[in-house]
Amino acid sequence: MTQLQMAIQGIASPEILAVAESENIDPQKLMKLIANGEVVIPHNRNRNAVPTGIGSQTSTKVNANIGTSDIMCNLELEIAKIRICEEYGAHSVMDLSTGGDLDSIRKIMLEESRLILGTVPIYAVASKLDRQGKSILDFSPEMLFTEIERQAEQGVDFMTVHAGITKWSLQAHDMRDRLLGIVSRGGSLLKRWMLSTKEENPLYQYYDKLLDICEHHDVTLSLGDGFRPGAIHDATDATQISELIVLGELVKRATARGVQVMVEGPGHVPYQDIAANVQLEKSLCHKAPFYVLGPLPTDFAGAYDHITGAIGGALAAASGADFLCYVTPAEHLCLPDLEDVKQGIIASRIAAHIADIAKGLPNATAVDDKIAKARREMDWETVFRYSVDPKLARQRKSETSSDLSDRCSMCGNLCAIKTDKENTLD
Amino acid sequence: MTQLQMAIQGIASPEILAVAESENIDPQKLMKLIANGEVVIPHNRNRNAVPTGIGSQTSTKVNANIGTSDIMCNLELEIAKIRICEEYGAHSVMDLSTGGDLDSIRKIMLEESRLILGTVPIYAVASKLDRQGKSILDFSPEMLFTEIERQAEQGVDFMTVHAGITKWSLQAHDMRDRLLGIVSRGGSLLKRWMLSTKEENPLYQYYDKLLDICEHHDVTLSLGDGFRPGAIHDATDATQISELIVLGELVKRATARGVQVMVEGPGHVPYQDIAANVQLEKSLCHKAPFYVLGPLPTDFAGAYDHITGAIGGALAAASGADFLCYVTPAEHLCLPDLEDVKQGIIASRIAAHIADIAKGLPNATAVDDKIAKARREMDWETVFRYSVDPKLARQRKSETSSDLSDRCSMCGNLCAIKTDKENTLD
Repeated sequence: MTQLQMAIQGIASPEILAVAESENIDPQKLMKLIANGEVVIPHNRNRNAVPTGIGSQTSTKVNANIGTSDIMCNLELEIAKIRICEEYGAHSVMDLSTGGDLDSIRKIMLEESRLILGTVPIYAVASKLDRQGKSILDFSPEMLFTEIERQAEQGVDFMTVHAGITKWSLQAHDMRDRLLGIVSRGGSLLKRWMLSTKEENPLYQYYDKLLDICEHHDVTLSLGDGFRPGAIHDATDATQISELIVLGELVKRATARGVQVMVEGPGHVPYQDIAANVQLEKSLCHKAPFYVLGPLPTDFAGAYDHITGAIGGALAAASGADFLCYVTPAEHLCLPDLEDVKQGIIASRIAAHIADIAKGLPNATAVDDKIAKARREMDWETVFRYSVDPKLARQRKSETSSDLSDRCSMCGNLCAIKTDKENTLD
Repeated sequence: MTQLQMAIQGIASPEILAVAESENIDPQKLMKLIANGEVVIPHNRNRNAVPTGIGSQTSTKVNANIGTSDIMCNLELEIAKIRICEEYGAHSVMDLSTGGDLDSIRKIMLEESRLILGTVPIYAVASKLDRQGKSILDFSPEMLFTEIERQAEQGVDFMTVHAGITKWSLQAHDMRDRLLGIVSRGGSLLKRWMLSTKEENPLYQYYDKLLDICEHHDVTLSLGDGFRPGAIHDATDATQISELIVLGELVKRATARGVQVMVEGPGHVPYQDIAANVQLEKSLCHKAPFYVLGPLPTDFAGAYDHITGAIGGALAAASGADFLCYVTPAEHLCLPDLEDVKQGIIASRIAAHIADIAKGLPNATAVDDKIAKARREMDWETVFRYSVDPKLARQRKSETSSDLSDRCSMCGNLCAIKTDKENTLD
């Protein structure tokens, strides 16, 4: 049985109990949320990932995209990225590799870490075709389902499928007003194949087959947004919302079959549209967990898109988004290196934590209160311990003062906290 | 006459005309906003700073705090920081020096740049007392007014004064519930002196004298928030709001005298309180421009507080705040170095730009649209030109591809934009 099926039947699986404990939430309440499709625990039964709850009333989670490309392919680097993900507190990793021996890269990633792991199976299909000198027009639905099945057997915990690009949503959409058209790799490939063959999207046409595979292995579906905007100009248009309407239908069909499902969201979205995008997903997709890519509320911050993504992600999560896909400083420019991965994770964790405070989660507020008290007492060790990056905070503090004294180089003798303490003594 | 007095009389000063042009706003409309106290142009008549409008319907501005401390005092470093401020697009610099020969440091800073320059005069007084081995209890009101007058003559464009800490607001306040008490240096010093001497805050008691000086030189007052929260736990409490009520009274008295005035705001504020803090300032302070310090919606991100500040600043500015004081990665840990200054400016500029799009300013949206079109055309030069940091964006792009070709190391051959262009050709 899947975690969803167990929750519906009132069976508290070890994973449900573990999530209830880490989230500080009553197991019965959590089971109800899972049964309603509001929370998922991506947990392929062929693997043993850390039980991780994603969805309403749980803390906001952070995903890190890693993986090779045909231009940069270095397995050791990718394994080092996984270590960074673990060290800096990502909750999930997506292997988006498109270069090298994809099956064995994925196998190693699944073994190297217990973080939940996601993939986009169509990348492997497209990448194999590309290496054979073929194009996406040589694609067949069987290739994709064979790939999905193999990855499910390998233990992949969640998979992105662009099943919302259908004849109907293609018909509804009008790209003429967009500045950037389609920026989803999976989306652009499927559209290319569909326009050329006049066939329906196989992920939609054979969705029941997909659900069979996912139910069998308890793979969580992540319904991708192939029509997501790639520029703030293109956001929240008919194209994007038509696809979201289809995703809502697919959410219903998945949960009815006992398959866990979440929905992916944009992308490039102006700040003033972010809350509405979250509300729309929750409404059209029956409260399924919302997994946002950023979002990025400006296009002008190349080399700093981790900050742009944190600004958008904090607002999205505070508005109800559940899962933040990080954006690294390398986004739009090159494949991320180790430092990019670290910066991306930390920026998204800050956004997630800020939103968790706004969501009223007591675990989150408690951290800030501990730090505030420690600052008053100039107890630097406690400040560091609860900080998002203890190592760097300690290093910066020590740059200009050799000990952990009560003096720092910013205020020197004119320290407000010290002056104010004298007031308390009066 | 001050810019405010000219605006009231319908005189379009060269500064008003320059701001109208750079903000793409009708000069008559701008004059009305200035006359209403909703926009200020800090512009000491003894200096010739770049005319910079701050307030409603103008673009969000960014301030960079620089300056020495008694532990780190290096004038060349501070001048290099000014260069960074100019290169990366800060609109304003505050010299918060407390170490070295403060008068000559300030003089050099005023000469080195045409960015508007602000100070906190009480720092100079406290710093001189400290160097003489005296405490703030040896302070006299005359010292402070002499300092303010000297700085006004030197050409300082705006000054932070903590005039809202009064016998009344001290009485109203109850610090017992706070975790961090007072974290404003000026605020803690004035409170210390007031509790000890039982005297009224001289900045409040002799406020008319302060207005005389400001009117004479057209110094813009920046009403400091000495009671600002230093931890999200302490935000939006009676202490903070009592002071804001006094600041509202002082705004009215300043504008009635023809003195330009803005109001400073927190500080550490949980995300869900930020919009209310902006609305409260606009309401209690008669729509005076709001100059926020961050705000920081979490206390746990030491060494990354530029990101925390950008998350808070974007929401504050989108909610109506007009002027963002940057926060650097060094905040709470040490005095910022050159890289910190750069990171702080860029993070705040991203927040300001995101908010300007949300505010509906056409100048802001136009930048993003140019970049989106250039991305579609793989016109990297145009992407770089309009990016927040063209140099770094170019450097990152070139890391893994030697030319500005249409291939980057992230997607390699599987580029969605290229695939989608093939669709357009069908």
